[in-house]
Amino acid sequence: MSFTSSDHTHMAHALRLAKRGLCTTQPNPRVGCVIVHGDEVVGAGWHRRAGEPHAEVFALREAGERAGGATAYVTLEPCAHHGRTPPCADALVAAGVARVVIAAEDPFPQVAGRGIEKLRVAGIAVDTGLLRDEARELNCGFFSRIERGRPFVRVKLAMSLDGRTALANGESKWITGEAARADVQRWRARSSAILTSSGTVLADNPRLTVRLGGAAATLTQPSPQSAVGGEGSASHGAGFGSLSPGLAGREGWGEGVTIAPLRVVLDRQLRSPAGSHVLDGSTPTLVLHGADAACRDDRYARVELATVAEQGGAFELPAVLSLLAARDINELHVEAGPTLCGALFAAGLVDELLLYIAPVLLGDAARPLLALPPLADMASRWRLRLCDQRMLGRDMRLRLHPVL
Amino acid sequence: MSFTSSDHTHMAHALRLAKRGLCTTQPNPRVGCVIVHGDEVVGAGWHRRAGEPHAEVFALREAGERAGGATAYVTLEPCAHHGRTPPCADALVAAGVARVVIAAEDPFPQVAGRGIEKLRVAGIAVDTGLLRDEARELNCGFFSRIERGRPFVRVKLAMSLDGRTALANGESKWITGEAARADVQRWRARSSAILTSSGTVLADNPRLTVRLGGAAATLTQPSPQSAVGGEGSASHGAGFGSLSPGLAGREGWGEGVTIAPLRVVLDRQLRSPAGSHVLDGSTPTLVLHGADAACRDDRYARVELATVAEQGGAFELPAVLSLLAARDINELHVEAGPTLCGALFAAGLVDELLLYIAPVLLGDAARPLLALPPLADMASRWRLRLCDQRMLGRDMRLRLHPVL
Repeated sequence: MSFTSSDHTHMAHALRLAKRGLCTTQPNPRVGCVIVHGDEVVGAGWHRRAGEPHAEVFALREAGERAGGATAYVTLEPCAHHGRTPPCADALVAAGVARVVIAAEDPFPQVAGRGIEKLRVAGIAVDTGLLRDEARELNCGFFSRIERGRPFVRVKLAMSLDGRTALANGESKWITGEAARADVQRWRARSSAILTSSGTVLADNPRLTVRLGGAAATLTQPSPQSAVGGEGSASHGAGFGSLSPGLAGREGWGEGVTIAPLRVVLDRQLRSPAGSHVLDGSTPTLVLHGADAACRDDRYARVELATVAEQGGAFELPAVLSLLAARDINELHVEAGPTLCGALFAAGLVDELLLYIAPVLLGDAARPLLALPPLADMASRWRLRLCDQRMLGRDMRLRLHPVL
Repeated sequence: MSFTSSDHTHMAHALRLAKRGLCTTQPNPRVGCVIVHGDEVVGAGWHRRAGEPHAEVFALREAGERAGGATAYVTLEPCAHHGRTPPCADALVAAGVARVVIAAEDPFPQVAGRGIEKLRVAGIAVDTGLLRDEARELNCGFFSRIERGRPFVRVKLAMSLDGRTALANGESKWITGEAARADVQRWRARSSAILTSSGTVLADNPRLTVRLGGAAATLTQPSPQSAVGGEGSASHGAGFGSLSPGLAGREGWGEGVTIAPLRVVLDRQLRSPAGSHVLDGSTPTLVLHGADAACRDDRYARVELATVAEQGGAFELPAVLSLLAARDINELHVEAGPTLCGALFAAGLVDELLLYIAPVLLGDAARPLLALPPLADMASRWRLRLCDQRMLGRDMRLRLHPVL
């Protein structure tokens, strides 16, 4: 199948719409839809949150009768099953669309090709794979959970030029500047869960909440679903007031009330002290501990506890990730110390490294970035591929993907 | 003084010409000159190597009688003294130029304003300061040596993402890729000297010679001085055949036979072993040692030896730099281990950090980037300013300047 330039334009539009749900669709995927009659965009929509209508429904509503004979561009295969909402494939058939262009097939067992089949059986032309990579990347967490049974694991680290994350005395506030720290909040916001370890809780007592715009999370309500304006139309302008418009625009950070990511603490021996922010019950929190650990006071009264298998005095990390996938965690954002982050790397469980580099030197007495097993030779080094680099104030941000 | 757009254009042209002497003018500064009559460039030249004519002479020769009433753009104040060549200020006066535009004043004691004075006394309009920063940066080493009595110190380091330069077993070949290593050769080529320590000699046995294009240094001869073609004219095309044209063009790496940088080894106890490449006599080499050190064999027969003051079991680094400045070293390129590089940073003696970052992880057992005294608090961290970032193959190169 070869797609036209106009096909690309409309699918790119649908992807931009899908991104608006970046921080709100959990556990669902982010999906956008554009309906085009002739040369005219007659309907557009995106999925905002689980339980609410899918992208196709918003777009079809807007298109009304003009959906008849139109082409629908959808970033993910339309659903074929009755979930919390009726099947979108049926809705597209009922509306009489002539052609459906799909970016990525849905691996979800209850869909997985059946959406496409329903459409074809109804005589609709279906073309798939347009901007598939982009569509899959937008839902890297969803695809990882469904296809691999584990979340997409993104490790965030902030370091000096010489690869140090904290002084020898533990001080780590702040290596990077404000812009980099604000950026971290946005990556937290799009994640389904934030993972840390009790070591980090003891050392830094992080909140692991999403704080956009400096104060506590006070995102504006989502703007009404637009008609056909696309990006930049007036109806979208106020959608993400608490983010810098420049950054929100450039990287396509969604809009609407962020669903607070689940806080997950690896706390094998239940040693997080009283007064730990992660235990304050302000947002859903899951503490994973060893089967033998016990806590005799009420420190953990406001959080959920669960056990995970251990081996050799450490958690089995694949088991941790399976458990989180079973709880519908798509993107897992890791903010932890060199031990946990290093163990994830060493086990080949990291999908993305989000690395902030501040233009400072801390010296060799300061704390290392990652604890990794010693290498026997240079050929065994861990390789990564740089996929994005940008400046945030005086700091640099790299996004890298391990090369397996 | 406000300069016109045409002034800027011609001075930028003169700076590009000056850069052609990047690797050949040692110990002289790199200087370019453009002579403009009306709207026409009638003469252009650059200084190629010490003992040969200065930029102004080439440009005046080419301009001939058309220099009368013309404007001369010079990147450095014309000399006023009889060195190895007669004073350029006199030549400009004799040629009858009407105006001289100078980028940077020459701090050299025998010039230092006298060139400008000579011109003004002769009734020539003199304007200074156009693109001064750029002109000073081009000769950072010359200005540092004359104004501060020490070379411009550029420390080159190559590391993994986690700030490691070698495995625990010492293996360091190769962290970075070919493009980054070729780039290092170009920075060596523009330097007056390359500094290392006996520790690095023992660990890596480096050659510290300039190898451009893979084989030993075989730069082509300089192209003939051009008429008025500016960059890109046919007469310059063949000038730097052994460099990738793209890189040579983008960063303005000079042309002509590189003057081999002096190799300088800090070898306090004269412990470089027989067979060390730096002792092979293939290129001028200076070994600095402590007053008490002695060598009973002929290992050091092919190099020059000198002593430097020590304190507390280490060289006094400012004394090392003074000694090198006294030997006309402008830019000093440092390729050494964490101890020497760290000591230079800790002493505030580094002017530029040239940092190559490979997209790999080596782990915390690997060797650190810099040995620095432990920090008491984050406020005392060493700050740098990023002034340039680019990709070289899969590696990233950062140029940073310490913020004092």
